[in-house]
Amino acid sequence: MLKAIMWEKEGVYILDQRQLPEKVAYIKCKNYEDVAEAIENLSIRGAPAIGIAAAMAVALAVRKINAKSPQSLFDKLEPVFDRILNTRPTAVNIRWAIDRLKMLINKNQHLKVDELKELIIKEAIKIHEEDVEINRRIGEHALPLFKEKCTVMTYCNAGSLATGGYGTATAPMYLAKQKGINFRVFACETRPVLQGARITSFELMQAGIDVTLIPDNTAGVLLKKGIIDFVIVGTDRTVRNGDVANKIGTYSLAVLCKENKVPFYVAAPTSSIDLTIQSGDDIPIEERTPEEVIKIKNVKIAPDGVKALNLAFDVTPAKYISAIITEKGVFLPKHIKYINDSKKLEELRQNL
Amino acid sequence: MLKAIMWEKEGVYILDQRQLPEKVAYIKCKNYEDVAEAIENLSIRGAPAIGIAAAMAVALAVRKINAKSPQSLFDKLEPVFDRILNTRPTAVNIRWAIDRLKMLINKNQHLKVDELKELIIKEAIKIHEEDVEINRRIGEHALPLFKEKCTVMTYCNAGSLATGGYGTATAPMYLAKQKGINFRVFACETRPVLQGARITSFELMQAGIDVTLIPDNTAGVLLKKGIIDFVIVGTDRTVRNGDVANKIGTYSLAVLCKENKVPFYVAAPTSSIDLTIQSGDDIPIEERTPEEVIKIKNVKIAPDGVKALNLAFDVTPAKYISAIITEKGVFLPKHIKYINDSKKLEELRQNL
Repeated sequence: MLKAIMWEKEGVYILDQRQLPEKVAYIKCKNYEDVAEAIENLSIRGAPAIGIAAAMAVALAVRKINAKSPQSLFDKLEPVFDRILNTRPTAVNIRWAIDRLKMLINKNQHLKVDELKELIIKEAIKIHEEDVEINRRIGEHALPLFKEKCTVMTYCNAGSLATGGYGTATAPMYLAKQKGINFRVFACETRPVLQGARITSFELMQAGIDVTLIPDNTAGVLLKKGIIDFVIVGTDRTVRNGDVANKIGTYSLAVLCKENKVPFYVAAPTSSIDLTIQSGDDIPIEERTPEEVIKIKNVKIAPDGVKALNLAFDVTPAKYISAIITEKGVFLPKHIKYINDSKKLEELRQNL
Repeated sequence: MLKAIMWEKEGVYILDQRQLPEKVAYIKCKNYEDVAEAIENLSIRGAPAIGIAAAMAVALAVRKINAKSPQSLFDKLEPVFDRILNTRPTAVNIRWAIDRLKMLINKNQHLKVDELKELIIKEAIKIHEEDVEINRRIGEHALPLFKEKCTVMTYCNAGSLATGGYGTATAPMYLAKQKGINFRVFACETRPVLQGARITSFELMQAGIDVTLIPDNTAGVLLKKGIIDFVIVGTDRTVRNGDVANKIGTYSLAVLCKENKVPFYVAAPTSSIDLTIQSGDDIPIEERTPEEVIKIKNVKIAPDGVKALNLAFDVTPAKYISAIITEKGVFLPKHIKYINDSKKLEELRQNL
């Protein structure tokens, strides 16, 4: 399985996904700024993958910082944290990874600087390994949805290349394939950056999964025809009331599912759940350059000087979501607020 | 205003819309086969425009046919009719234009062959002129929707380049602009052939109308935000029960309008209304080559060998449509079946 990101002694290797599917090329990042740029320019994308990249960026920075005390190391990392946090404002995984490393540093102020540096680097690698395991578990929780000969639809790329491995929305696909279940996938191309066309169809084909590419505007009529058993997508941020931010167009797909009574599932590692935000209305939505709409791989598709709007994400209200599938199990959106409350979770489990 | 099609002594000139917006180039068609190919390869597109093109194709054929009697002229035209009818199966305007010419020939069997030929050519030109007038009237009926500072959304290109002039969905925009009303338009790009990006945004910009291009998957969230006053689209075929066939993605847009309580209007010249078909389920839907999805202007956007589905149209059920705007006036979808029944229309008018 192709990897989106790898930590090596000489630096961090990031698969340049902008060049997929024509070219499999890695960008060698020697310092945190290289990683920040790779996040910003979408060489690496996908909430979990950019969380891993953020942690590895800090690890790269740590190697180069001269500090006499843990506190001084922390202080010198502040501009690094800020730079990385500002690359992609919608994804919560970057903040989650940064917060985790900050906490680690704060807890280990008694260590020598070199020991602390080693610990931060190990933690970044651990964040990667944990992500693979989390995705595998999401896959196991979603696997029962994959009945023999079912037809599934997915959006954007919540795939192995959006994560450390397996993907979130694609994890059950890889597991179902391993188990010999027959199923097929419709992948929406996902304008403007075409992650579905370039990446999802690529990685599913690589795994021998039966995948058909469609323009985003074709999803509706397939849902109406009743040939889709369910839709499963990823998420960049899920908030307290169960609202979900994901790639632009997710909201429309969810409305079309509701209208046609097709279940709509969101695969969400708990790292992408942000209980500090009450409702989807409060999620900051990244607006990207109109160039991405007007040009496709440097080919212009619209007249010179045309105005274009490029909202990168939208928010799908909880009422359109059948369930949120995490590594901890399957939740109704309204119960996602209890994700860290093990007592309440046990209570819900007993009331099932 | 740029013209999609022109009849000249030396042949029919068709604007090659595949090259828009980079290049304004006309294809010179000397015989009906040239026109058939231009319809097939989407150099000319839009239901009314291809109806006009179909009539002009017959007119070109007529000039070259040697026939001793009107009946023989008709017989020799049969393969021409068949060829043209098979270019685009979903659009009813081609059949409408061909039927009109067939009827003309049948009614004028008493003429000399040369007189009949002249009559057919004049009729093709008349079909063009009438279309411009019809669109202007659609524009007048839709004009009251355009309040000062309103925001409108449209899909695909039901514009002046899809017709003889003015367009259908765009006709009220051109009239509102003439009247000095301030409004802005969001144009959906309309994958895979990008008629919205390449043509609608182009022709509206040419007319000085404030237009913003969006990916199709961005329409939903704009409707949810409440910034769109109404949506107006064209149609390739409207049938007896008020269902409407139009470019793929129209159905999704209509569902999103319903969910967000935004009025959804269809601009339909009566030539595109087909009362011989009972329901949208019976409209033949053209499936086009997957190449259109996989390549954008010869640039590949997906992996080698990927499967892709390219449904060119979808059907929007009557229940999602606020009103159908024709040159005869504004109709509820359920009343469209009375379009040719002037007594019933008068009755409906009095009950308003």
